[in-house]
Amino acid sequence: MMKKKLKLGLFGFGCVGQGLYHVLHETHGVKAEIKRIGVKHRDKQRPLQHDLFTYNPSDILEDPEIDVVVELIDDAEVAFQIVKGSLEKGKAVVTANKKMLAEHLEEIYQLQRKYDRPVLYEGAVCGSIPIIRNLEEYYDNDLLSSIEGIFNGSTNYILTKVFEERKNYADALLQAQQLGFAESDPALDVRAFDPKYKLVIAMAHTFGVFVRPEDVVNFGIDRISEVDVKYARDHNLTIKLVARAFKEGEHVFGLVAPQFVEPNHPLASVRNEYNAVQVESAFSEKQLFVGKGAGSYPTGSAVLSDISALTYDYRYEYKKRNEGTTLRFSNKAAAEVIVSFTADKAVTPHDFLQFTGGFRGNGHQFLTGYVPLEKIRNWAGQPGVNVILAPGTRPKSIKSIEKEQVTAA
Amino acid sequence: MMKKKLKLGLFGFGCVGQGLYHVLHETHGVKAEIKRIGVKHRDKQRPLQHDLFTYNPSDILEDPEIDVVVELIDDAEVAFQIVKGSLEKGKAVVTANKKMLAEHLEEIYQLQRKYDRPVLYEGAVCGSIPIIRNLEEYYDNDLLSSIEGIFNGSTNYILTKVFEERKNYADALLQAQQLGFAESDPALDVRAFDPKYKLVIAMAHTFGVFVRPEDVVNFGIDRISEVDVKYARDHNLTIKLVARAFKEGEHVFGLVAPQFVEPNHPLASVRNEYNAVQVESAFSEKQLFVGKGAGSYPTGSAVLSDISALTYDYRYEYKKRNEGTTLRFSNKAAAEVIVSFTADKAVTPHDFLQFTGGFRGNGHQFLTGYVPLEKIRNWAGQPGVNVILAPGTRPKSIKSIEKEQVTAA
Repeated sequence: MMKKKLKLGLFGFGCVGQGLYHVLHETHGVKAEIKRIGVKHRDKQRPLQHDLFTYNPSDILEDPEIDVVVELIDDAEVAFQIVKGSLEKGKAVVTANKKMLAEHLEEIYQLQRKYDRPVLYEGAVCGSIPIIRNLEEYYDNDLLSSIEGIFNGSTNYILTKVFEERKNYADALLQAQQLGFAESDPALDVRAFDPKYKLVIAMAHTFGVFVRPEDVVNFGIDRISEVDVKYARDHNLTIKLVARAFKEGEHVFGLVAPQFVEPNHPLASVRNEYNAVQVESAFSEKQLFVGKGAGSYPTGSAVLSDISALTYDYRYEYKKRNEGTTLRFSNKAAAEVIVSFTADKAVTPHDFLQFTGGFRGNGHQFLTGYVPLEKIRNWAGQPGVNVILAPGTRPKSIKSIEKEQVTAA
Repeated sequence: MMKKKLKLGLFGFGCVGQGLYHVLHETHGVKAEIKRIGVKHRDKQRPLQHDLFTYNPSDILEDPEIDVVVELIDDAEVAFQIVKGSLEKGKAVVTANKKMLAEHLEEIYQLQRKYDRPVLYEGAVCGSIPIIRNLEEYYDNDLLSSIEGIFNGSTNYILTKVFEERKNYADALLQAQQLGFAESDPALDVRAFDPKYKLVIAMAHTFGVFVRPEDVVNFGIDRISEVDVKYARDHNLTIKLVARAFKEGEHVFGLVAPQFVEPNHPLASVRNEYNAVQVESAFSEKQLFVGKGAGSYPTGSAVLSDISALTYDYRYEYKKRNEGTTLRFSNKAAAEVIVSFTADKAVTPHDFLQFTGGFRGNGHQFLTGYVPLEKIRNWAGQPGVNVILAPGTRPKSIKSIEKEQVTAA
């Protein structure tokens, strides 16, 4: 097959952009060259010749020679305008901006159809792991039932350091940022927004549903205290921030929250900035993908894979969507949690769908049982309450929990 | 994209064939139907209507309505004739026959070009893990340096049972066969021919080299004794049958042999019939894929993914080959091993490139150090000698070991 030589216009020259530049110049398999790089700050030192850079987006968008726009900037709204503008001008797009994608995915899906140009975004979901490509290409005939994993490298790095090196939380976060794993706004990571964006994107390719990120419940790792860490250690557990979506009947559910994990669980051995995605399907059963989820080269390499795919006119087909899924997103599910808090009666047994017990220790109270996802969302807005999913548990629809209760009664 | 409705001619209706039939009827995403099934034995009971079956291969090969031949028989030579005959008749082929592929891969590559028809074989390498597709599609721009993993489900099942349930070897093998994980000729599994065939196929898509299976050294798990198992347990190790190929300079090396594995090694947690493939590359670094490597549905599901890919005219491009690789296969590498034997002087320090020590215990002698791959091949032909790779070690070229010796001297 004859490959095209692509001319790229790059927006953003931060960590991933520089990684891409390096990766592109070390490999000879991809016929592509960077023609222009759009940046914001005139006063920053640039490691490349001056005339490669521009401060005017039109220099890229209006350049008919540029076939592909590679969008690697921070600001999600500006990024969306670049994507839209590029498609309108007949250019293909590669982006790694998960916030922008999660917030505009249905629109981007429509824009691709309208302008008949592809948008690829493997680098946006779990860095170097080729999960979108696999969901698109390999599982199109398979009956997928769930996707779950560690979707954020910086929080996994922090949790690994806290558990393995007994580092304190603030030091571990700082170190993650210095290594370039954490977002410039660390709240996106530690409050679990970043993995939620990735989950929203993955859900579109797993189940064919477009979900608004604000509809998915996320609970961060920023309230994990020494007492929770001690609880984990005393029970030979670790804590991982787990993103998951699953199907039950006609509904798809999603949740991102920390979870106590047993040592033999496949996610327990996923350490530092590594990410992991486990896909479950009726026939191929459990499939696990593990790889670096953050950092300049792993993400740059994923972006380059997308550019390479454009040389043979690859595009996502959104097969699960286009084959006419009847699935709908719902939050009517519940998860088994261990809630810890200090203020008396901040949480009571009445908050639970199924209350299984409580205990006190180290100045904290702990209550356990099944709670609806909406309750977890409420607690996320209530400082002083920390939620961690119980070890080995998987959320279920409220319907199926009520059915179990009836059967047990 | 408009998908074609494919008519399939199936050869073989054993474990994988029946799995495929079931999977095909449970999913609605793939536009394909089985028109005819070619089988050998007239007297076997068949679970489907009689007129679907034929005993004459021409009924499939000469049927102009059949677009795709799915080859799932045991006999590698007959299978190759079917593949060749199908391509000559302008039919695409899907096969899961790793022995046939490994022995004829270069010829099959040429036949695909000659007749301009694709042969897909994802089900041949590590069952449900989409490794060939990922090597083809996702890593085409990446600088791959090694591929390694657990490429055989039945031996991994046996080793898991021996270590975790303290089963004896013969019982564990019998159980694996009853569950349908082991080949009808168990020697292919336990003497490590089956994972070698898969490694040979993977090497073509990782490094662009076609290697004859007889050129790759394989050492099985059939000589592992209670003494070796005790050694592993005493040192908090397990044993895995590891297939690996790696690049050093202009050479590609390959080896399949059992290895002592530490508990925190990514392969240690890959249990039972699960397979794992770890790909290392310059930029995406380590990527691990884990999934079921054997069994009717996982392999049937991989075969169906190939059929599905044919509906949009997918074919392997053998990019690493076609981009003109200069890599050549070589056996001039060495591995650090622990050799155990009972007969006096069956192995001596002179057999080693670097001899590091020896000890006696439980009626066995153990010698350790680096040995050339060709020596491992010789020992495979010498009953009473067992070779297991040392924990944490990775084979290296003899050149680089000699360089280290010079530097150390």
